[in-house]
Amino acid sequence: MKVLLVFAHPEPRSLNGALRDIAVKELEALGHEVRVSDLYAMRWKPEVDRADFPALAPDARLKVAAASGEAFAAGALSEDVKAEQERLLWADVLILQFPLWWYSMPAILKGWVDRVYAYGFAYGVGELSDRHWGDRFGEGTLAGKRAMLIVTTGGWEEHYSTRGINGPIDDLLFPINHGILYYPGYDVLPPFVAYRVDRLDDAGFQSVAERLRERMRTLGSIPPIPYRRQNGGDYLIPSLQLRPESGDPAASGFALHRNDAAAPGRDAGSDTTANTSVCEFSRDR
Amino acid sequence: MKVLLVFAHPEPRSLNGALRDIAVKELEALGHEVRVSDLYAMRWKPEVDRADFPALAPDARLKVAAASGEAFAAGALSEDVKAEQERLLWADVLILQFPLWWYSMPAILKGWVDRVYAYGFAYGVGELSDRHWGDRFGEGTLAGKRAMLIVTTGGWEEHYSTRGINGPIDDLLFPINHGILYYPGYDVLPPFVAYRVDRLDDAGFQSVAERLRERMRTLGSIPPIPYRRQNGGDYLIPSLQLRPESGDPAASGFALHRNDAAAPGRDAGSDTTANTSVCEFSRDR
Repeated sequence: MKVLLVFAHPEPRSLNGALRDIAVKELEALGHEVRVSDLYAMRWKPEVDRADFPALAPDARLKVAAASGEAFAAGALSEDVKAEQERLLWADVLILQFPLWWYSMPAILKGWVDRVYAYGFAYGVGELSDRHWGDRFGEGTLAGKRAMLIVTTGGWEEHYSTRGINGPIDDLLFPINHGILYYPGYDVLPPFVAYRVDRLDDAGFQSVAERLRERMRTLGSIPPIPYRRQNGGDYLIPSLQLRPESGDPAASGFALHRNDAAAPGRDAGSDTTANTSVCEFSRDR
Repeated sequence: MKVLLVFAHPEPRSLNGALRDIAVKELEALGHEVRVSDLYAMRWKPEVDRADFPALAPDARLKVAAASGEAFAAGALSEDVKAEQERLLWADVLILQFPLWWYSMPAILKGWVDRVYAYGFAYGVGELSDRHWGDRFGEGTLAGKRAMLIVTTGGWEEHYSTRGINGPIDDLLFPINHGILYYPGYDVLPPFVAYRVDRLDDAGFQSVAERLRERMRTLGSIPPIPYRRQNGGDYLIPSLQLRPESGDPAASGFALHRNDAAAPGRDAGSDTTANTSVCEFSRDR
């Protein structure tokens, strides 16, 4: 397979840098072709602004979606953005790797999403009507490909558990997994999460590394999170609300948008946490 | 009161620009003192990198939290960051205003958080022990102040409703409201959300504007979201899990971290959506 790893950490000698190297080495040993977009090393420009749309008249009001759509259609997006879009089209698997900063991705990676996900490429795709609300959430430009997150946290696994103060990790990652990866069509794999990374001793690091290698070995086979396809019949259109008869009656919030009953080889009653890769050692104190 | 509005939209002539001007004008008419941090106009640097820590030796490994804490303690953070921290200390109320891009804030605003929220300022504050897990989630440097979001979306209100495909808006905003605003101590007010803003006619705009003026008039009096204080007894320490006997047995996910029963003048059974400002016109097609 072809794998694109988008990496967002400012220090190559960091734990994230080490995990990236381990992932790349394991993937290459398996015969996969790997490319890395190292956003800090590339000096990636994070902010969407007028400079992204060179064809926009100097005195024209910048309407981001419209400008993005026009530039994409005309092949007039900036070169850095076009290069990343080509890499996304090239790759069978996308991996986003980052430290969780303030419960989300670092700004430089958010800026990769904001800029690379152009209108006509990642959104604004397909028929928009009262019967089909665009090709998104399971359909779209990147359908048929797989994507997953590699995330590190300073906090403990318990702090991100079902009743943990930060909120459950799968809920915190839902806006990314569902809203950024599933949206343009990716099959989204369970995230790899390493907790409490500021306190890792050598044994802890080796444990995380081995878990990561194992995840890389199953990249092509592990079942994706069973999100519901927007245009698959579960949602009313155009209100895009889950039909009253769909969904686990006991479910609420983000979990409504999973159909665990339809997932092969998985208990219908499994909770979201069960699908997150957990580093067992992080339970140690 | 003193109000700081942090604004993150690249186009002054946008709807967001118009709403910002309306909010500022209303606040000033009420006698409040207002400052605006217009991140695009300031050419705010979004990414955390070595340049943020001038005292760091050129060959030293960058450990972000450690470097941030050392620079904050030594007064050695970059001038742009120090100026924003001073504004936060000056203001009684913080408003973050942004368009919802990919279910979160634009990169430039995330980068304001990543950089301004230094260790020792917004995190790493207070005693860290088995009885008190730092001053955060209701305590901290910014305790006693209020904060709120002003957010615009292209999508419909229904798409962000309890069963809407995007997920409930209050859940999507939880990582910001709870994880970024409540974390360093702010009392967090219900967000102001304007939906479907790409299709606003003049009547629609006037309706949003009037709702926003009303919210500005109640900035000092509206009850905050009743999040649970980390060190207030509801959580086990150090696992930081909500005690088994705490919380609505029917609640799960992010909603567990609210204590609506303790909120004055509010039904214990109110759902999160009830606390979001809703622009009624956005239901029109």
